[in-house]
This record gives sequence, C-alpha cells and structure tokens, in this order.
Amino acid sequence: MAKRVLVGRPVRSDSLGHTLLPKRLALPVFASDALSSVAYAPDEILLTLSIAGLTGMFVAPWVGLMVVAVLLVVVTSYRQNVHAYPSGGGDYEVATTNLGPTAGLGVASALLVDYVLTVAVSVSSAAQYASSAVPALRGHEAIAGVLVVAGLALMNMRGVKELGRVFAVMTYCYMGVIGALAVTGFVRFLMGTLPKAASAEFEITTEAAFDQGLVGLGGAFLVARAFASGCAALTGVEAISNGVPAFRRPKSRNAATTLMLLGGISSTMIMAILLLAQATGVKFAEDPHTQLTVDGAAVPESYNQHPVVGQLAEAVFAGFPVAFLAVSAVTGIILVLAANTAFNGFPVLGSILAKDGYLPRQLHTRGDRLAYSNGIIALAAAAMVLILVFDAEATRLIQLYIVGVFVSFTLSQSGMLRHWTRELRTEYRPAERARMMRARAVNAVGLLFTGVVLVIVLVTKFTHGAWITLLAMAGLFLMMRAIRKHYDDVGDQLAIVGSEDEGQLRALPSRVHAIVLVSKVHKPTLRALAYARATRPSTLEAVTVGVDPDDVEGLVAAWERQDLSVPLRVLDSPFREITRPLLKYVRSIRRESPRDLVVVYIPEYVVGHWWEQLLHNQSALILKSRLLYTPGVVVSSVPWQLESTAGQTGLEGAYVPGQRRLP
Amino acid sequence: MAKRVLVGRPVRSDSLGHTLLPKRLALPVFASDALSSVAYAPDEILLTLSIAGLTGMFVAPWVGLMVVAVLLVVVTSYRQNVHAYPSGGGDYEVATTNLGPTAGLGVASALLVDYVLTVAVSVSSAAQYASSAVPALRGHEAIAGVLVVAGLALMNMRGVKELGRVFAVMTYCYMGVIGALAVTGFVRFLMGTLPKAASAEFEITTEAAFDQGLVGLGGAFLVARAFASGCAALTGVEAISNGVPAFRRPKSRNAATTLMLLGGISSTMIMAILLLAQATGVKFAEDPHTQLTVDGAAVPESYNQHPVVGQLAEAVFAGFPVAFLAVSAVTGIILVLAANTAFNGFPVLGSILAKDGYLPRQLHTRGDRLAYSNGIIALAAAAMVLILVFDAEATRLIQLYIVGVFVSFTLSQSGMLRHWTRELRTEYRPAERARMMRARAVNAVGLLFTGVVLVIVLVTKFTHGAWITLLAMAGLFLMMRAIRKHYDDVGDQLAIVGSEDEGQLRALPSRVHAIVLVSKVHKPTLRALAYARATRPSTLEAVTVGVDPDDVEGLVAAWERQDLSVPLRVLDSPFREITRPLLKYVRSIRRESPRDLVVVYIPEYVVGHWWEQLLHNQSALILKSRLLYTPGVVVSSVPWQLESTAGQTGLEGAYVPGQRRLP
Repeated sequence: MAKRVLVGRPVRSDSLGHTLLPKRLALPVFASDALSSVAYAPDEILLTLSIAGLTGMFVAPWVGLMVVAVLLVVVTSYRQNVHAYPSGGGDYEVATTNLGPTAGLGVASALLVDYVLTVAVSVSSAAQYASSAVPALRGHEAIAGVLVVAGLALMNMRGVKELGRVFAVMTYCYMGVIGALAVTGFVRFLMGTLPKAASAEFEITTEAAFDQGLVGLGGAFLVARAFASGCAALTGVEAISNGVPAFRRPKSRNAATTLMLLGGISSTMIMAILLLAQATGVKFAEDPHTQLTVDGAAVPESYNQHPVVGQLAEAVFAGFPVAFLAVSAVTGIILVLAANTAFNGFPVLGSILAKDGYLPRQLHTRGDRLAYSNGIIALAAAAMVLILVFDAEATRLIQLYIVGVFVSFTLSQSGMLRHWTRELRTEYRPAERARMMRARAVNAVGLLFTGVVLVIVLVTKFTHGAWITLLAMAGLFLMMRAIRKHYDDVGDQLAIVGSEDEGQLRALPSRVHAIVLVSKVHKPTLRALAYARATRPSTLEAVTVGVDPDDVEGLVAAWERQDLSVPLRVLDSPFREITRPLLKYVRSIRRESPRDLVVVYIPEYVVGHWWEQLLHNQSALILKSRLLYTPGVVVSSVPWQLESTAGQTGLEGAYVPGQRRLP
Repeated sequence: MAKRVLVGRPVRSDSLGHTLLPKRLALPVFASDALSSVAYAPDEILLTLSIAGLTGMFVAPWVGLMVVAVLLVVVTSYRQNVHAYPSGGGDYEVATTNLGPTAGLGVASALLVDYVLTVAVSVSSAAQYASSAVPALRGHEAIAGVLVVAGLALMNMRGVKELGRVFAVMTYCYMGVIGALAVTGFVRFLMGTLPKAASAEFEITTEAAFDQGLVGLGGAFLVARAFASGCAALTGVEAISNGVPAFRRPKSRNAATTLMLLGGISSTMIMAILLLAQATGVKFAEDPHTQLTVDGAAVPESYNQHPVVGQLAEAVFAGFPVAFLAVSAVTGIILVLAANTAFNGFPVLGSILAKDGYLPRQLHTRGDRLAYSNGIIALAAAAMVLILVFDAEATRLIQLYIVGVFVSFTLSQSGMLRHWTRELRTEYRPAERARMMRARAVNAVGLLFTGVVLVIVLVTKFTHGAWITLLAMAGLFLMMRAIRKHYDDVGDQLAIVGSEDEGQLRALPSRVHAIVLVSKVHKPTLRALAYARATRPSTLEAVTVGVDPDDVEGLVAAWERQDLSVPLRVLDSPFREITRPLLKYVRSIRRESPRDLVVVYIPEYVVGHWWEQLLHNQSALILKSRLLYTPGVVVSSVPWQLESTAGQTGLEGAYVPGQRRLP
C-alpha cells in the first residue's frame, strides 16, 4: 500500500525486488494509520460517555478493553489472510475470489469511501491538535485542513521520494512520546505524585436521560456508541494485508509478525491513555461550554479544551510546557502521515479496479503519473468537501467513519471462512487439515466479532451520519457496475466473431479521396498538401469553407498565385459556420462511393505553452471530433511546430488532467 | 447590438435585410439599458447627498439637471457618430479609425469591463427591487442575483427567439408606469392632494463635516460625487450607435431620431422622479438605520427602505397597494432586460475584437454557437463574482460603474473631432463644410462634457472602487495586446517568404512509413490496418507497447491466429508507460531516414455520450498530442463508431466548452 511512497519513481518493473522492507521499516510505514487513531479514538470514547456524566467517565477503560479485544481478534484473523493471500490484493481479492465479484465490488466501494474518510478524519483531528497548541488557528480548522489535504495531494502528484525515512522517524518518535507519557504517568501514579489534569476540577452535567447512571436500554446504547467510535482504532490494520509484497522474505511471516506487533502496541497505547485519563481526572465533552461547569457556573468562554493526549501531557509533564507542544506536534504530524497512507492506497485500489474494468481504464496504467493523479485528485476533492461540510469536526466525521472498514472486514472474514472450507475439501494430510481447521476457527471468531461490531456501528451511528457513508457506498457500487457493463458491451461489439466480420473488415477500400483543409495559404497548408500528395491518393483536392466573401476572394487569389496544381473547392456556408458544410461535403462523397475511403488532412499548429493552445486549433478540434462520426473517414493531423515549441519533444512534463496540450 | 436577439438563429447571411427594425421597435430594444438606469440613478443621487442632511436633499433636482444636461449633450454628439459611422462598429470603430489601434483597444477594454458592470449593477438593482417587494428575499439578494445571471446566460446560450417582442412590450409598460406615476403625481401636486411619502417623517442625521450645509470644498466634492453617480443614467446611449445597421432605411436618420427620443424620455423620467421625491419628502439613505431617525430615535430595525421609485409609487398611488407591486415588478423586469442587452453586446464586441486578432480567434466565427457561448460564459462569470463580492449592493457597485463608459465616450468624441477635421481637408463645397463645422462643434462640446465628467468620475470615485475598474481595464488591455502580438508572431512564422521556403515545403517526402497502433486484436484494429493498407505506404507495421508480459503474449498469439501478414513489433516499456517508448520509436525512424514521412494510425472509439468519452481513448488522446511535437509525423485517427452513436452524425447538438466530445 505504501510501497510507492517508499520505492520512489520511476522504477523499472524488473527492479522492484530491490526495495523490500525489513520489519523495522515496515512497521512504521504501515502502522502510522493504525497508531494515529490512538490520537482520537480515546477522545471519542470519553466524549460519548460524558453524556452520562461522571458514571460514564468511569466506564471508559472497560469500553477501551472491548475495543482492544476486537483489535486483537481482528489482528489474529488478518494474520491468516496474510498467509493465505500474500499477493497484496487485500480484502478486495479475498472477497472477489471467495464470495464472487459482487462481494468484491462491495468491499471495493466500502474501502474507497473509507479512504476518503481516513483523510478527512485524520486531517481534521490534526487540525484540532494544531489549533489546541496554536490558539491563533482556532476557528480556522477547516481551511487549515483543506490546505493540508491540498498539500498532500500536490506532494503525491509530484511524487514523493525518501518519505519512507520520514515515516519511520516520525512513527518511532510518536511511539516514543506516547510511551514516555505512559511510563512517566504510570510511575508517578505509583509514587502518588501524579498531578490532576486541568479539567479535573470541572463538573460534568449529566443529561437528564442518564441521571440514574448507565442503566437500561439507553445506557447500553450509549456504551455501544462509545465502543463503536472507539473502534476507529482498528482502521489501518488492513494496510499490512495489502502490503505483503513489500515485505522481505519470508514475506507472509514477516507481515504476520508486524501485524502482531502493531496490535500489541496499539492496544497498549489505547489502554494507557484511557487509564491515565481516569487517574488524572481528565474531563472531555463534546461541547465543553454547555456540558462542563466549574463551581456551578459554566466554564469560561476562553476555555480551550485540549485533546485527551494533550491534557495528559500537560498533567504528566507538569512544569515542562514544552512537553505539551512536543506531544501535540508529533501527534499532528503522525495524523497527517496517516492521511498520506490513504493517498497511496486509494490510487492503487483504483488501479486494481480499473484493471478489472470497474473504473475508467486510464486509472490502470501503472507508472504513468496521470493514472495516479486522477485518483489523487478525486480523493483530495472528496476529503476537502467532507472537511468543509463538517467544519473539520472530527467528532462528527467519526460518525461516518469505520462503516466501510467493518463492511470490508466482515466480507473479508466470511471470504476466508469459505477459503478454508474449500481448501479442506482437497486436503487430506492430517497436520495440514488441523492447521486449516484452526485457521478457519480464527477467521470464524473474526467474522463473529467484526459482524457484531458492524451491526453495532450501523445501529448506533446510522442517524448520526453513517447513512451518508452507506449512500456513498451504494452510489459507488452502482457506478462501478455500470462502468463494467459498458466495457463488457463495448468488448462484445468489438470482438471479431465470424468469418463474415473478418472478410468485411479486411476488404481494402477501393479508392482513397484525400481532402486537405485550407483556411489560408501558408506554410502549414503547403506541408499538409505535400504530405497528402506523398500518400498518393486516388483524388486530391483542397477544400475551404467560405464564411466571409472577401476572405474567400483573397484565398482563391493566393491559391492561384501559388500555382499548386491542386483544385481548391470553396464550400458555401450560408450560416457562417465551418463544421456543418464540411461534414455535409464529406458525407456526400461517401454517399456517392460508399466503398471508398476519405482521408481529411487538417493542418494544425503545435504550440509550446498551454495558453497558446487556447488561441489556436479550436475549430480544428471540433471539426475532428465531428468528422469521426462518419464511417469510412480517417482524420489526419498534419502538425506545424511553432517556434515556441523549440526544444520540446512531447516527452517532457507531467500531463495534469485539464491541462492536456491538445493538438 | 440586440440584433441577434431579435432576428433569432440561425439566419442566412443573405437574409439579414429582412429583419430591420422600425423606430417603434428599435426604441424599446435599444432603450431598456438607458431607461432602466432611471431605476437607480436618482436613488444614488439622493443617497450620496443624504450625507449632507436635508440641505443635500434639496440640491438633488439641481444635480439631476446637470445629469440631464450631460445626457442631452451626449445624445446630440452621438447623432453625429451615427451619421458618420453607420456600420455599427460603435466607439471601438470610431476610436480605431481616427485615433489608432491603441485608442481603439482602450475603448474596447473599457466597454468590456462596463458590460460586466452593466450586468452586475442592473441585476443587483433588480434584486433589491424584488426584495423590497417580497421581504422573504431580504438578505438573499446576492444569491438571487447570481441565479438571475445564470438564467440569462443559459437563455442566451440556447438562443432566444421572439424576445424582441417581450422587450418592446415590457419597455413600453415601464414607460407607461413611470409616465402614469409622473403625471398622477404632478396633477395631485398641483391640486394640493399629493400625500407625503412614508419616509417623509424621518429626520436625516447630517454628518459632522456637513453640519454647515454644502459649503466649501467638501460640499462641492459631495455634489460632484452625487453627479458622477447620477451619470449612470447615460449608460446605454452607445447601444444605438452600435445598432445602426439594424434600423430601417434611412438607417442613420432613424437611429438619430431614436437617440433623440431616448434622450428626451430619459431626461423627463429622471427629472420627474427627483422633483416628485422632493415634493413627497422622500428620504433615502445608504444606511437608513444609522442615518435616519424618527422622533429622535433610530428607525426601527424592521424598516424596509424601498427604492425611490417604489416609495413614490406608494405615495402617489396611496390607497392602491397593487400599484407599488406593479411598479416594482415592471422596474425589476426592465432591469433584467437591461442586463440582457449586455449579453448581446459583449459577445458581439468580443467577436469584432477576435476578428482583429485581439482575442482568441474562436470567438469570431459568426453563427457558431460556441463562439458566443464563450463570451456569454465569461460575462456571466465575471458578473457573478462582482455580485457575490459586493453582496448585490448596487450602491457599492455603482462606484465601479460608468468609468468605462466615459472613457469610451471621451475617446469616441475626440475621434469624431479628428474625423471632421480630416474630412474638412478634402471638402470644398461651402454647404457641406458648414455642416461639418457644425458637427465638429457639436462633438467638441461633447468631448468637453464627457471629458469633464470622466475627470469628475475618476476623482470622486477612485478610492470608492473605480480603481478596480481601471485595474481590470488595464489588465484586459495588456492581455489583448499580448494576444495580438502572438497572432502577429505566428503569422510571420507561417508566411511563405522566399522561393527557398516554397521549394522545401513542396518537396514530397521520399517514402511513407505507416505504423498502426495496436492494443488488442479487435474490429477497430482490423479496420485501421485495412485503411492504412489502402493508402499503399512504402512500409507498414503494427506496433504495440509491452506493459504487461501476459497481455503481450496474448496479443502476439491472437495476432498470429489472425494471419494478417503485417509484422507486429512489440516495444519494450520498462517503466510501464505507453507514450514514451512509442515516441522514441517514431523518432528513431525519423532519425534513420529524415526525408521520409511517418504516418501513425490510431484506432479510436467514437462514443454517443459524453460520459463514455471518459472511459475511452485517454491514452490515445495524450499520445496524439505528444506525437505532434515530432516533425515529419502525421497522426491519423481511424474512428470506430460504437453502437451508442447510432443515429448521430456529428451534426447535432450544441458544443458547450468543456463538453467537447473528443475522439
């Protein structure tokens, strides 16, 4: 998944083997997404539970434990995936192979949507870390987020070299910082010198429905919702299963080990943060100014609620304000890096889908910058819209998140169940059978857990925003199916079926009529005439469309002066347009001799700057596109390279969509 | 100017004579712009003077008289223009012919900017009339204005038939309504039964600087600014001078008579409104809630300040609330129609400028919808930006307005002065000389007046927003000069100069290498092969780029099965891209035999829907554009019409920019 980031570009196909990752590099590269969610998942748990007041806060570590349990089950399950499907196709491949293309497409839609949300959530969370450390940013989080996404998109479009090293350094920094926080906090707690958090003095207003504590259906629902939000910590686990080919040999075993490391580190971090939050008395509310009170009055307007990790850093490293800034900075950066992994995963998945005919084919061509650019632009645009619409509020975005990931998890696990069942049918060695049975049991437990979480996520978050995700997934699913159907239809149309087809297609046109389009007598026209003549057509004539009588007169006079021995035909244009008379003339030739071929030579200017393009060839462009509707017509562009193209070969520069230097 | 609106489309060039306008139709068609400014010009005079309190209000009719004087002088001057330049080129032609292309380009820049402002000011004013009549619209004027502009743009892009009749009916309605208002008001004033306006009871807070009344430099400046704003009533006069060719014979005389009628009606309306405003005691302020008080207290927040015409209608037709709504509605519509005239004038001027090489040539082709569409989109986009940025506040937009018109007036009048001086040099008949001397005197007075007004406008409005207009004009001016220079440069490059040039250009390439691009063995490929073969090239080979080894293997096998007797060359693509290897191969052929011609045949799909285009041919598109950089290469598109093109001939439909169905 993050392979491209590491290997740089361009890379010869045969040199891919050189860039395999040792575990110490693979962990940080693939883990930033999963580990970064520690920066917001505990916050979401606390924030949701805060509705139930202080009782809620005390439940938080137990919810965290549930999240950790699911995380460990999912990690264990994916260790099976990694062994069984080491090709890097990930959940899409597992679902397609075992459950069929519809399930595969479902996984793909879910993952595409979730990549967008990964960017939106991570960047929004990063913006909140930034604005908590730099108060001047407050109120401008959305704009800051959009700028960060734009920066990521640009960076990825231009190609990022050596970012692997940055990933590694930053991820280890992050682990170090959170580790130091946890250890220092734990030691001070044991020594009884752990200070209280700044927000410990606040009272939480319990919502009326929960003034009896977390009892009944309402209480269960709230805990379930907190759990569902906390499960955001699980995103990014699938990254390793997509990245197996980038590991050093033995690939699958190294990937599985890395997965286990990731699960362990992630679990430890979440639990450490939730326990420390309880020990320091951190209060965290969705809207601190209405939910939190101090001495019976609302907290002052100026109160700036730091993220939980920030509050812990303030408390644990009390007296060292630099520590708070360092923790915020490192966390913000790791969140941006997490967003960046989506910029690698999204185009790669897009490319795989394009190869399978579900997305426009131009997304496939590997190694062509344009292919990735389109994916990057689509991802960035969608994420920017989300950030703006939700005003960079991670809490609201998280309601849309992880639906996709858990759809993908669940389909993938049931795919694995099928996989093992099928494998078992042809396997008779007892030791192997036992191993497969064990693997199947693991995936069955995985399916059970991920399925239950999916249901919980859907039930608790549907009205909070998950419906948007489902709608987007359904839209993508239908669009991709329609595209595939289109390609299939076209394929059927183009296939050479019978010998009748072939005979007709191989029959040579009896004669070739060459038409050279003339607007002025100048060098490009003479070149087009010479080239047309070089192909020795049966007939050759120059054609012009008479829009302005004076122009036509001047053209005819110039033509006669040049003595070109090619007849110039002037087409009448009563409506002062160019395309229609010419089209009609070409069609009249075709009608008279349907077995002949008409070749229309169009002199074109080739320009050196994109803006010059706007000043030339627009009529030619339209004319060409319309001529192609007539069967039996070939449109030949005869280029004339203007001086501004000096030194250009057509090989240089990236072709960004929308900037195509069309001839 | 509004010719196209009246004549409908398409019109044969030779049928233009049939659609000439009698005066009774020409007046409303050309007058809506000029007459509609009566809906806001008096408001601006009152509003500016209100800064000086009640004293200011009493000066208003005198300022109105000054505006009328200038209006009549300008109308008289333009009667000379109309006689001397009946071709409809307007100020641009007058300035270019008499003062040279730089002055002409200056006029053109000024007019283009002013067309944009005509739309922005008229639509903003219309939105204010609408929100004064329909309070629900209040606060949403900018959005309403943008929607109206979008509607106008769409209407004009699709072509408007029979709008001439609407113009005529609505303009006469408007004249009738304002006329009835004036006559009723005057009669009731004489009878002593004219009621006071609702705002008559308000006191105006005089700004500290003017508590001594309108004395000294400050007072003079304020009056000058009110006058400059009132001169907005003069915009639209030039419309008739651009429209002479649309008049019935004797064209110039009829146009001159219409101009006089327009001047008379416009003057009467302005004076009637200003006098009635004084008689009914209308108070009008830029910010009524701070400037107006009633019984010493600020007017209530709910007070909705109607435009002056609306307030007069309320007062004069007191007891008939329907009259107020009718006046507001008719005025709003006439303002939108005024904006619509700019949608006709802007593209026509753009087309003239394009013909002269100052704008991209594709804006010129008359009768091609695309030509006008680009102009319409540019105008609409610019006007929308202005409306949004200035929040549809006509008062602020008017500070930017009329700078352009008066630049154009002034240059045109000095052009006319030159014109007569030159004519007089060759004219010896005393009667004619006397007539010309008179005409020159008229234009000299016109130059004096318009020049003075231009200076006043620049001095009083520069810091209020006129600098934006000047900046935009300068930007357009420089851009158009750069475009002209580019076209001139290209023209020099392309001109056939010596016999050496010719000999080289006429020399036929010695051999033709045909290359057919192959990605799959399917019908389009077979057709491309057959067509290439039909041109009997010296050599013919099929070329494919090997990106995926499996694909190549399959292709080669299919190729051999088909037994096509054409060699298939597989180009190596170590970086998994298509364009570069092919380009290198073509260049290598050119290097080996520089005198030969390479024709690259590219099979292309022709699709029936624009969205299908996104799914096909993207690689071909890029490839084609890059191949054209290599001299001696012809790129031939061999179309394959997919079934979705059934029934399409390439002749149907408008080609909106950005929606080009590229092959």
